Amino acid sequence: MTRDFSGEPADLNAPDLRARAVAAARGDAPFDLLIAGGLIVDMVTGQIRAADIGIIGPLIASVHTPGSRTDARQTIDAAGCFLSPGLIDTHMHIESSMVTPAVYAKAVLPRGVTTIIWDPHELGNVHGLDGVRWAIDASRQLPIRVIPLAPSCVPSAPGLELAGADFDATAMAEMLSWPEIGGIAEVMTMREVINGDPRAIGIVNAGLLSGKMICGHARSLEGSDLNAFMAAGVTSDHELTSGADLLAKLSAGLTIEMRGSHDHLMPQFVETINELGFLPQTVTLCTDDVFPDELQDGGGLDDVVRRLVRYGLKPEWALRAATLNGAMRLGRNDLGLIAVGRRADIVLFEDLEAFKARHVITNGVLAAEDGRIVGVIAGIDPQPLRDSIKLAALSENDFRVPATGSRVRLVTIDRPRFTQWGEVEADVEDGFVVPPAGTMMLAVAHRHGKADSRPRIGFLTGWGEWRGAFCTTVSHDSHNLAVFGGNISDMTLAANAVIAAGGGMAVARDGTVEALLPLPLSGLVSDAPLDEIANAFRAIRGAIDGIVDWSPPYLVFKACFGATLACNAGPHQTDRGIADVATGRVLETPVLGVV
Amino acid sequence: MTRDFSGEPADLNAPDLRARAVAAARGDAPFDLLIAGGLIVDMVTGQIRAADIGIIGPLIASVHTPGSRTDARQTIDAAGCFLSPGLIDTHMHIESSMVTPAVYAKAVLPRGVTTIIWDPHELGNVHGLDGVRWAIDASRQLPIRVIPLAPSCVPSAPGLELAGADFDATAMAEMLSWPEIGGIAEVMTMREVINGDPRAIGIVNAGLLSGKMICGHARSLEGSDLNAFMAAGVTSDHELTSGADLLAKLSAGLTIEMRGSHDHLMPQFVETINELGFLPQTVTLCTDDVFPDELQDGGGLDDVVRRLVRYGLKPEWALRAATLNGAMRLGRNDLGLIAVGRRADIVLFEDLEAFKARHVITNGVLAAEDGRIVGVIAGIDPQPLRDSIKLAALSENDFRVPATGSRVRLVTIDRPRFTQWGEVEADVEDGFVVPPAGTMMLAVAHRHGKADSRPRIGFLTGWGEWRGAFCTTVSHDSHNLAVFGGNISDMTLAANAVIAAGGGMAVARDGTVEALLPLPLSGLVSDAPLDEIANAFRAIRGAIDGIVDWSPPYLVFKACFGATLACNAGPHQTDRGIADVATGRVLETPVLGVV
Repeated sequence: MTRDFSGEPADLNAPDLRARAVAAARGDAPFDLLIAGGLIVDMVTGQIRAADIGIIGPLIASVHTPGSRTDARQTIDAAGCFLSPGLIDTHMHIESSMVTPAVYAKAVLPRGVTTIIWDPHELGNVHGLDGVRWAIDASRQLPIRVIPLAPSCVPSAPGLELAGADFDATAMAEMLSWPEIGGIAEVMTMREVINGDPRAIGIVNAGLLSGKMICGHARSLEGSDLNAFMAAGVTSDHELTSGADLLAKLSAGLTIEMRGSHDHLMPQFVETINELGFLPQTVTLCTDDVFPDELQDGGGLDDVVRRLVRYGLKPEWALRAATLNGAMRLGRNDLGLIAVGRRADIVLFEDLEAFKARHVITNGVLAAEDGRIVGVIAGIDPQPLRDSIKLAALSENDFRVPATGSRVRLVTIDRPRFTQWGEVEADVEDGFVVPPAGTMMLAVAHRHGKADSRPRIGFLTGWGEWRGAFCTTVSHDSHNLAVFGGNISDMTLAANAVIAAGGGMAVARDGTVEALLPLPLSGLVSDAPLDEIANAFRAIRGAIDGIVDWSPPYLVFKACFGATLACNAGPHQTDRGIADVATGRVLETPVLGVV
Repeated sequence: MTRDFSGEPADLNAPDLRARAVAAARGDAPFDLLIAGGLIVDMVTGQIRAADIGIIGPLIASVHTPGSRTDARQTIDAAGCFLSPGLIDTHMHIESSMVTPAVYAKAVLPRGVTTIIWDPHELGNVHGLDGVRWAIDASRQLPIRVIPLAPSCVPSAPGLELAGADFDATAMAEMLSWPEIGGIAEVMTMREVINGDPRAIGIVNAGLLSGKMICGHARSLEGSDLNAFMAAGVTSDHELTSGADLLAKLSAGLTIEMRGSHDHLMPQFVETINELGFLPQTVTLCTDDVFPDELQDGGGLDDVVRRLVRYGLKPEWALRAATLNGAMRLGRNDLGLIAVGRRADIVLFEDLEAFKARHVITNGVLAAEDGRIVGVIAGIDPQPLRDSIKLAALSENDFRVPATGSRVRLVTIDRPRFTQWGEVEADVEDGFVVPPAGTMMLAVAHRHGKADSRPRIGFLTGWGEWRGAFCTTVSHDSHNLAVFGGNISDMTLAANAVIAAGGGMAVARDGTVEALLPLPLSGLVSDAPLDEIANAFRAIRGAIDGIVDWSPPYLVFKACFGATLACNAGPHQTDRGIADVATGRVLETPVLGVV
């Protein structure tokens, strides 16, 4: 099944459609579709009431007393079901699920997610404007509404890393001129924006000029930093670190894309909202990043709703955040509410705990039923995304840090997630640093063919003892080849397995590749079915759990993918060296000097 | 003082403005204006917190810890004040206050109203497109933000009355093409829209095509009527009749323009909202119609807020409806919130009961202080609005109803406000009907020069005994000359006094004109100062109170101005006769036939 959302929202203005809807509402003509016997969860009042819904084309034409109308070409029995507008995911990256847009749609649409705001940031980082164009093309005829945003920070930390592309203000203006693009995706170059850096400001100004929304990434910002970031034009945030941070960002007037990817924070968010006593209209919901196994097991935005309710948020509040509030953020008055004159995106949930969707209607047409898409989704050719790993096989020496003398001082990157600079002494043997006790290594090799690909190597502390290695080309945001490990031979082995697969992930231990997830599209995505990708990812999880002792909430598997995120505060290893966004400094080698 | 709002909201996108704001937010440059020492009423969270506000040009650049910044070119001491965004009146008619836009601005801006959505419906009815153009021109350089709408129903009941103009779909499309026009004003042709009448549907379709908002007038609509009305494209309502109606319209998904012009309903609205337990985001506030004495005594939207709070609504809810919710309805993300990156429209209220505004800032500039406008408001030339009463003096015979025979059956218009058809017998003397006991007369004379101006006369019951006459050219919506009275001589006297004044109102009793309010502009408005108009209007009130015994809530002075509103259900007297919108029937004379 294909469905074209590209004419929205103007398609609802067609005079013949409206005339048909008015006549049907009046009772002078049958509905195209009648949803009868359900309970509407009213996103405005929060009340639940029995009502039937009459639909003409993509338009809700009537919301009326149960049973008062039976004249319809098609009727869906909603007995026992709660009727909600389709869920709107206000910030997400399909690439994080390592699947194609078609596979993603197939996974979440039957669960009630009808609109996703996709930041194709990873495709942009790897393929440049061609990647964003591919994202638009791939979205165009899916049965889910995709609103792609323009990636704002490619690379996320200019000067500190090299991605596959470089989006300046001119590139941003070009993307914003495309009608499909809904706005600027999360502006992560916080420091540059705050400091008035011309490149970052030029990108934000292109957004202001376009009149489209400018989404933010305001991690840990407060006080004058937050003020400056918002003064530039950024209007949303999803990088909340606590319930107090949620309240602070709400009070600042940011729209919140409250995300499900950091489950440990969600109970705090719920507590904060419950203390307010109502759901502010500026709270929307998003997934941000969902791993393939989580996508298969839990779903997409439906799982965020489900967990918020489990943590104590009223179901009608969670749904309102996921529907009406999301629509208002998008300026889409046709979405987010079961009301006459709005678009018929409707989900029939069997209950308000498990939020199991029985039927999903988009634009007035049954799009999914009993967990399955109605019809067939045809994805577009992924060929342009192949062959993106421009790296030859590596050798063990590539993972050694050269040094002179017999003992040197090294910088270290201390702690996962909230990194800090550290220092340590190390021996030198045969011209290479001997990794000091209490550290593990992170090597990052440029893989986009834009510069030399010799791995740059850092020593991390606080990551525990690694009994093997993990290599991934999913390594935010530039997605260079990142290799974590406790020994050079396993690191080399894992890296070469990933390179041979055209990208992906591998875990090696004791000279054996224990798990491999090939991601041959962009080094980020596979065009295999979800269950295959999810299972391979589970195998990666299992294998890496055998070589690392995790310590939540920060020393977790997921931390590997963000370890190279140089736009965050503190030192980060990139393909250029150890970078610090606060100073703009990049150390090509961790060696500070001979002791 | 003049201020041009016409470049909004794009003016906030100027790169140099943003650069200055970011630098000031960061602390590297002083603010243009600092508001220090106040308490922000947070429209998102509902919380009240101490914070200072730094402003650059029209932009809020910083919201920060009290006292943490003192560097500013100008500082306003907000000690003891509550800081609110400027109030947004989402539906109003300046003409109802019988003053020019400049005088209206002078009255409400110092009270904290910074944005008004003006439906210049009355000017449109009298002067056609020229009247709407004059409204736009008159608004352009006022220190208050005026968003004019395109009057949708000129005349309000086509075929049942004659106004000074006739706006069809082509006229509507032209008005909507003007950038100043914010959308279509209250669509009152409910029955025509519901029935798919081509003229009314053409007008609404022009609104859909424009992408601008289509405001409604959904009085007493429910069930399939309401569905059909909304299916056509109407998205708001202010014609609520009860608390239950409010809840029904909210549940239907309409944006509510909750109005202050029907005070007796407001306690019900408050009760309904309080029972919901929160303020829905689709509740906005409006004044609709404010008489000149009420404007002088109570103010504009500030008085709606004040009364809602007096009736038990939380102050932060009332303010949220009047600010953030209004801005969201308008799709104006730059308004409605004290937040960095938004427009600096800020009111300093001395308390949250009387809502006395100490300072009012629009676009970052002090616009009013201690109840007075800062600077001088220069209105535009009202000359185009003069000489609109195209009527010669009337004679007593003009107010007599011709009939044959000696006794006839008459139709009557029973009850004020919710009118019904009635019948009565009457004697005929000298070829004229003798007004039967228990009735009074309403004569309406066409005054726009589009047709004959012979008064059409009806007999009303339920209006009590009239001991004199009242004439007004403010008579909704066509504003023909309407004369209410118990005897023909006073009716003639009052009518001729108004005609001689070039329009307005007069009360005559026992052969004397007891009060006269000249409204020489459009027959609706005076360019005199507010106090003069208010006092003259008070004199009219006093005089009419002497000739009628009112019986609230429906038999009230205000009912006179709506008695000719033929778009409402039931019989209504117009310049063409006694009209009924449900049937489209117009009886030129009330005489049904000889008994």
